[in-house]
Amino acid sequence: MQLLAVDVGGTSTRAAVVERDGTCVGIGRAGSGNPTSSGGAAAVAAIVAAAGAAITQSGARATDLAGGVVAIAGAGADTGAWLLGELAKAGLPDGLTLDADLLAMYLAGSLADDGYALIAGTGAAAIRVRHSSIDATADGLGWLLGDAGSGFWIGHHAVRAAAAGLDRRGPTTLLSELVMTRLGVEPSPERRRHGRVPALTDAVAALYRVRPVELARFAPLVFEAAATGDRVATTIVAAAAEELATSLAAVTAADIDGPLVLGGSVLSRQPALADLVVRSFRDAGHSSSVVTVADGLAGAAVLALRRHGHGTVDDAAFDRIHASLGSAR
Amino acid sequence: MQLLAVDVGGTSTRAAVVERDGTCVGIGRAGSGNPTSSGGAAAVAAIVAAAGAAITQSGARATDLAGGVVAIAGAGADTGAWLLGELAKAGLPDGLTLDADLLAMYLAGSLADDGYALIAGTGAAAIRVRHSSIDATADGLGWLLGDAGSGFWIGHHAVRAAAAGLDRRGPTTLLSELVMTRLGVEPSPERRRHGRVPALTDAVAALYRVRPVELARFAPLVFEAAATGDRVATTIVAAAAEELATSLAAVTAADIDGPLVLGGSVLSRQPALADLVVRSFRDAGHSSSVVTVADGLAGAAVLALRRHGHGTVDDAAFDRIHASLGSAR
Repeated sequence: MQLLAVDVGGTSTRAAVVERDGTCVGIGRAGSGNPTSSGGAAAVAAIVAAAGAAITQSGARATDLAGGVVAIAGAGADTGAWLLGELAKAGLPDGLTLDADLLAMYLAGSLADDGYALIAGTGAAAIRVRHSSIDATADGLGWLLGDAGSGFWIGHHAVRAAAAGLDRRGPTTLLSELVMTRLGVEPSPERRRHGRVPALTDAVAALYRVRPVELARFAPLVFEAAATGDRVATTIVAAAAEELATSLAAVTAADIDGPLVLGGSVLSRQPALADLVVRSFRDAGHSSSVVTVADGLAGAAVLALRRHGHGTVDDAAFDRIHASLGSAR
Repeated sequence: MQLLAVDVGGTSTRAAVVERDGTCVGIGRAGSGNPTSSGGAAAVAAIVAAAGAAITQSGARATDLAGGVVAIAGAGADTGAWLLGELAKAGLPDGLTLDADLLAMYLAGSLADDGYALIAGTGAAAIRVRHSSIDATADGLGWLLGDAGSGFWIGHHAVRAAAAGLDRRGPTTLLSELVMTRLGVEPSPERRRHGRVPALTDAVAALYRVRPVELARFAPLVFEAAATGDRVATTIVAAAAEELATSLAAVTAADIDGPLVLGGSVLSRQPALADLVVRSFRDAGHSSSVVTVADGLAGAAVLALRRHGHGTVDDAAFDRIHASLGSAR
């Protein structure tokens, strides 16, 4: 018996075919599948592409699979039914169910019944897990209303600080040069029309052409500038850490100490930021273990086995999931 | 001889037909005409509608008019030529030229050759005027990259603070109730799916359906909450004033003292915020007069007369523009 596990993210979507013992025998990857940021049709296309690649690599046929789990953000009753209908029409196996992407991220790091996950990728959110279910959520409200401390948030602060620096409204920062170079705009300080730095006009034109959420791709520039000691960049990193620590603090409960799973591209690739958040967690009296995961695919596999395989997933199966995913990637 | 004056804004577009002596004999109004926020076609439609209403009210025909000025944001060479072509196709008078909306706002408040304008409506910007031209500009970069302290900025901070309050990431604030009520969402504190306040899920769904720039309509709620002493709201107002003062400080020059023209819906309707900004301007050593204007239509009329009528507009003509616009509105 084989199951499908899909982990849908704001930047990429990952899928695996998982055996009953936890061994993953095929994986696939596609673009953003988040229906809120990318739209329903793009979400379906990304899920189908990633799942199709995983199924092909496994050598199975979709009809051979005994269901599975799609871990995805914001799948309420209405959008969930629509999404499952579209996936069935597209030829994915029967018996798929939806689960929260945040829970998959937690389970990618820990099988403990109770604990916390803090995720910062394109978006950001914190959850408390109790009895293997999400018991409280903070943030995860998207780029416009929340996602404080996320890749979008950091990238947005980067382009605003870059613009303010060129505009003499804010301090001079390396971010101005890095952002303009990334945009292919010459950050020349000479002044042109209406006393406006020409690079600013060009940057505005370039940046309003992309979807806002794509500002997340400027986040790495902040860490690059911070590494050189740029004060504007280090301030943004510290502020992001504080926002993430605040989201985590909003879900902590006195009777749950951990573990704490850190997930998402920002927390998994930027140890300096992760360290600031973990220090804040420990300062609040938590002493539990911290695990960092890049994405929630292993957790989606755990959920597929729990929901459609057998009720419990033991440490041996958990290790097989990670080992087989690690060698397949 | 009659001229057309159009003042294009992010929320509304205003037009007037102006006689050579400054008397305005017809006015018109339409929706947002800003090509960046509303798109080129919507901009053309708004300008044509406002101008058409003004021309109809004046009793003139478009072909009778000897040109005029359209004051609009961000009209560079490319978009400017396109826009003028579209306006000609739509039957507006020949001989229209474009000018900066920020200069029109300044001239709505003062004929002085040198001075400053600080505008906070949907967007926000500061300019220094020297020899009757824009000599320096700060901000005016749009909602994504700048517009710090604008109606959008304030409204965006309002919905984020409202969400953070419900999410236990931020302090409790009256803004949560005011924003949710405005959205038609019940701000019940009961918890539902994944430990998430249901109102938050509903608010996210409602707010991602509108264009981001429309968050400016939540700005008045901040002033309403601040008037009751709500600390989150008063902090947002103070931060907005600081952002606006920073933009103004970025364009001040030692050899120009003023006058200072305050413009736009936020600065003209929220005296508490305007007072904070003016205090900061005076603390920096400026002693010049401060004039507040709601929009730039009178300044567009000044520009129409300067560019297409006669070179100078004297105080008597300036007074006639304001008196005739005041009685026509």
